[in-house]
Amino acid sequence: MTDGSPGARRAGGELLQDGLFFTACPYLDPEVWMYCRLYRTMERFRRPEILEAAKAGGAFLRRFARVSSGQWKCAFCLTRDGKAVKIQRTVFSECFYLLAMDELSRVTADEGMQLEAEQMMEQLIHWVRVDSSGLGRPQLPGDFPTNSMAVPMMLLCLVHQLSEGRGQEVAHKYSELTGWCVQQILQHVQRDGTAVLENVSLQGGELPGCLGRLQNPGHALEAGWFLLQLSAQQQDSELQRTAINKFVELPFQSGWDNGHGGLFYFLDVDGHCPTQLEWNMKLWWPHCEALIAFLMAYSQTKKPELLQRFSQVYEYTFNHFPDADSGEWFGYLTQEGKPALDLKGGPFKGFFHVPRCLYMCELMLDDLLANRD
Amino acid sequence: MTDGSPGARRAGGELLQDGLFFTACPYLDPEVWMYCRLYRTMERFRRPEILEAAKAGGAFLRRFARVSSGQWKCAFCLTRDGKAVKIQRTVFSECFYLLAMDELSRVTADEGMQLEAEQMMEQLIHWVRVDSSGLGRPQLPGDFPTNSMAVPMMLLCLVHQLSEGRGQEVAHKYSELTGWCVQQILQHVQRDGTAVLENVSLQGGELPGCLGRLQNPGHALEAGWFLLQLSAQQQDSELQRTAINKFVELPFQSGWDNGHGGLFYFLDVDGHCPTQLEWNMKLWWPHCEALIAFLMAYSQTKKPELLQRFSQVYEYTFNHFPDADSGEWFGYLTQEGKPALDLKGGPFKGFFHVPRCLYMCELMLDDLLANRD
Repeated sequence: MTDGSPGARRAGGELLQDGLFFTACPYLDPEVWMYCRLYRTMERFRRPEILEAAKAGGAFLRRFARVSSGQWKCAFCLTRDGKAVKIQRTVFSECFYLLAMDELSRVTADEGMQLEAEQMMEQLIHWVRVDSSGLGRPQLPGDFPTNSMAVPMMLLCLVHQLSEGRGQEVAHKYSELTGWCVQQILQHVQRDGTAVLENVSLQGGELPGCLGRLQNPGHALEAGWFLLQLSAQQQDSELQRTAINKFVELPFQSGWDNGHGGLFYFLDVDGHCPTQLEWNMKLWWPHCEALIAFLMAYSQTKKPELLQRFSQVYEYTFNHFPDADSGEWFGYLTQEGKPALDLKGGPFKGFFHVPRCLYMCELMLDDLLANRD
Repeated sequence: MTDGSPGARRAGGELLQDGLFFTACPYLDPEVWMYCRLYRTMERFRRPEILEAAKAGGAFLRRFARVSSGQWKCAFCLTRDGKAVKIQRTVFSECFYLLAMDELSRVTADEGMQLEAEQMMEQLIHWVRVDSSGLGRPQLPGDFPTNSMAVPMMLLCLVHQLSEGRGQEVAHKYSELTGWCVQQILQHVQRDGTAVLENVSLQGGELPGCLGRLQNPGHALEAGWFLLQLSAQQQDSELQRTAINKFVELPFQSGWDNGHGGLFYFLDVDGHCPTQLEWNMKLWWPHCEALIAFLMAYSQTKKPELLQRFSQVYEYTFNHFPDADSGEWFGYLTQEGKPALDLKGGPFKGFFHVPRCLYMCELMLDDLLANRD
């Protein structure tokens, strides 16, 4: 962001930490996306300073994020003056770049930017489905490829972004990909339908070891509302049922800490201890995703038990994450619900999960109130 | 290890987890080193099954750890049948490989193995001091090189390994490198001598941001006893004083949790919250290193306050880490001292820090008892 932008002015908080801009996963890209989305769709955020901040962020990204001219690989982290610090050998920085570019193109009507988003999509599909060698990860004989749930989730999210409000032609263009994403996500339902596992084989089987047993309840809940959103578009009641039963209710049942409340970050499906040191911490973003998932499930079905779950997550979330003294949300709580880190923004906590959650829940609640019987 | 070895028979515990052999940092390499060291230097461990396990581990490493024939880069993680899963773009897997090869060559009198260790040393020196491009890390304009304390510490440890008991000629061969390592480690004393920082600039200045403010008390204590060991060899009382004042007492003062006891894992020198989610956890290995550091400092100086600190760390360590029910040590405690993970071995907890600590403390205590006035 340029120094005059709102983003830069609150640089000490979220956007800028220690002189580094963190882009993607989630940092500057999601922030640009979020600014544009709020500006475009919510009357009270249609303010020139929000648009200017988004445009300045977008200009910074367009100039610096793609690390080599003509190449599509994006930096994960940039210095304040746009030098690449780190490049991840995954697709996520590029996915968030696409989100920022497409949403920004919708408020600026910049066709070149929209075209760039569409071209990035083609590159991403190539990396994910045809040949990943361009990501720079050496192929090692013991490093067998896996279906990590984040990848089809992310592509499904991008299809939603690119096709929203653009008519049947664009939806049709991505229909085969949409089906592939859904099928890849559904492969993560394992153990005779009793668990969602974060990593499975390319054939949809369970992987050996702790990698295969890993569960990330908040991530499964996020996949749940991605699928619910699609089921509504496609009027697919079978997909809706699967999304609610397998990706909303199951992860909540296995992931909720009945002792202290809140969602665990990681679990092992066999009840062993995960190897992730932070497994029993309560993070802000799984709770954001759970709020969206339960409210969307309730909005679509009107089943009272889903509204009850929403209230349960809401109570925990708003009693524990907001900082009553200084504003904003804490990101990382101990199992018992005390802040373990007092920072409000960091390498993985930017202006994304909290505002997206509040924005989507507000829209759904408004809709429920407008349409109540 | 072959299936018949002691290592493989207790595979469910430390050596083998989930069908993956983790080599280095620390896994199979340090285990081979530890077996050989115990076999070679402690009468009660001079048992054929320990030697056989070490030899089987060494044969496995020699066959599979170096991922390409004729190349020196080693895998960080191998499958059970020797396929590379992951290669780190650092020097640590290769350092641990060297430790294993050199120590094994001392019990087997295998000159080819010893030569391989010495050749690996030349390669490591080249990567660290001349040209790191062979490590496979792309040079990015914003990713400025830093002096990370682990690197000179590791090289100093390797010099000690290669030169121990081999006379003046070998010591002389590495004397310039030894001086360089010490100078590089001492650069981490910052803030007018009041703090040890984990990362500094190549010029020995403080780095901006949270990277520059990071402290790892257990790691500084480990550096402390490396320097103390060298000061004894070189009869350098100035180095001894610096090691004790700056690398033993300072990290303990800043790193000890006066509320709950134990050493924090990470701290920020300005008192901000570190960005590492596990910053306030109590890990087994910093306590192992603190025990060695305080006992060595006491052994060299006979200052009672250093023995008192040893006892303080000992009390905490032996009251919290050992599992009274099932044996072995827990690795990861909450700030309050409760096990946060119940696993006994994992990707970074193998047969290394605990036995090295017990081994070195036993030797030092025996020596103190034998030489008491």
